[in-house]
Amino acid sequence: MTNYTKINIGTEDRAELHDKLGLTGAEVSVNRLPAGAGVPFVHSHRRNEEIYGILAGAGRAVIDGENVSLAAGDWLRGRPGCQATVLRGGGFRRHLCLHSSQGGLPGRLHRGGRRRALNQRSGQGGTGTALTAPLDGK
Amino acid sequence: MTNYTKINIGTEDRAELHDKLGLTGAEVSVNRLPAGAGVPFVHSHRRNEEIYGILAGAGRAVIDGENVSLAAGDWLRGRPGCQATVLRGGGFRRHLCLHSSQGGLPGRLHRGGRRRALNQRSGQGGTGTALTAPLDGK
Repeated sequence: MTNYTKINIGTEDRAELHDKLGLTGAEVSVNRLPAGAGVPFVHSHRRNEEIYGILAGAGRAVIDGENVSLAAGDWLRGRPGCQATVLRGGGFRRHLCLHSSQGGLPGRLHRGGRRRALNQRSGQGGTGTALTAPLDGK
Repeated sequence: MTNYTKINIGTEDRAELHDKLGLTGAEVSVNRLPAGAGVPFVHSHRRNEEIYGILAGAGRAVIDGENVSLAAGDWLRGRPGCQATVLRGGGFRRHLCLHSSQGGLPGRLHRGGRRRALNQRSGQGGTGTALTAPLDGK
C-alpha cells in the first residue's frame, strides 16, 4: 500500500475530496458557480472553521447579513458559529471550500516559511534524503 | 468584531494563511514554483495529513522515493509518516498545500453534497434566513 492517494477532479462543477482522498482531518470541495448563480441556503457550523479561497472569478459572500465582496486571490475564514455563509453573485469560476476542526491543529507549522524550511534542507536536490526528524514534530 | 477574516494573497510566490486568517485547525499555503525549480528538501510529519492541490501547471512529487506526476486538477493526500513529499519539476504555476490533523474532523460533513444541502435550504434566495440548526452538527 502506498502512502499517498492521488485523484484528478476533472472539470466537474463540484468535487468533494473527503471520500476520494480518504481525508480524516479536513473536508475540501472545489466548486464552480456560473455567473448569477448562488448557493440557495444559509448555514452555520458549531465547531468548524470554514475557509473559502477564490481561485478564479468574482462574487460575494453574505456573512451574518453582511455582504462581503470576493475576487480571485481572496481567502476568507468564517469562525464557528457565524450564522450565514452564502456564496453567490457574479460567477465564481473556481473556488475552494475547506473545513477543519477549530483548534484541531494547535501550534504553528510554518515559522518563517520557506526560509526556515530551506535551512533544514537535507540535500541540494532532496533526492530521497530524509530528515532524521519531522520538520515540526507533527 | 466580525465573524470572518478576509485577505487577498496577491501575486506572491508563497502565501501562508495561518496567521493572516487566524487559522487554528489547518495550515494552508498557496505556492508558485517556477519551471525547473523544486522544494530542495524531503520532509515528513508524524500526525498531519498533507494535501496538495495543483491549480495550474504541472510537475511531480516524490513520495517514499516514488515519482508521482502531477498536473492541474490533481489532488494528492500524503499519509502521516510518508517519508518524502517533495514537489519539483516542470513548473507548478499555482499549487496549494494544506495540513490538518489526522482524525481531527471525524465523521462526514458532505453526504450527497449539494443535493443534500439543497434539500435543507431555508429559502429560495437564502437572504438571511438562518437554519435553526447547523447542517451537520459540527
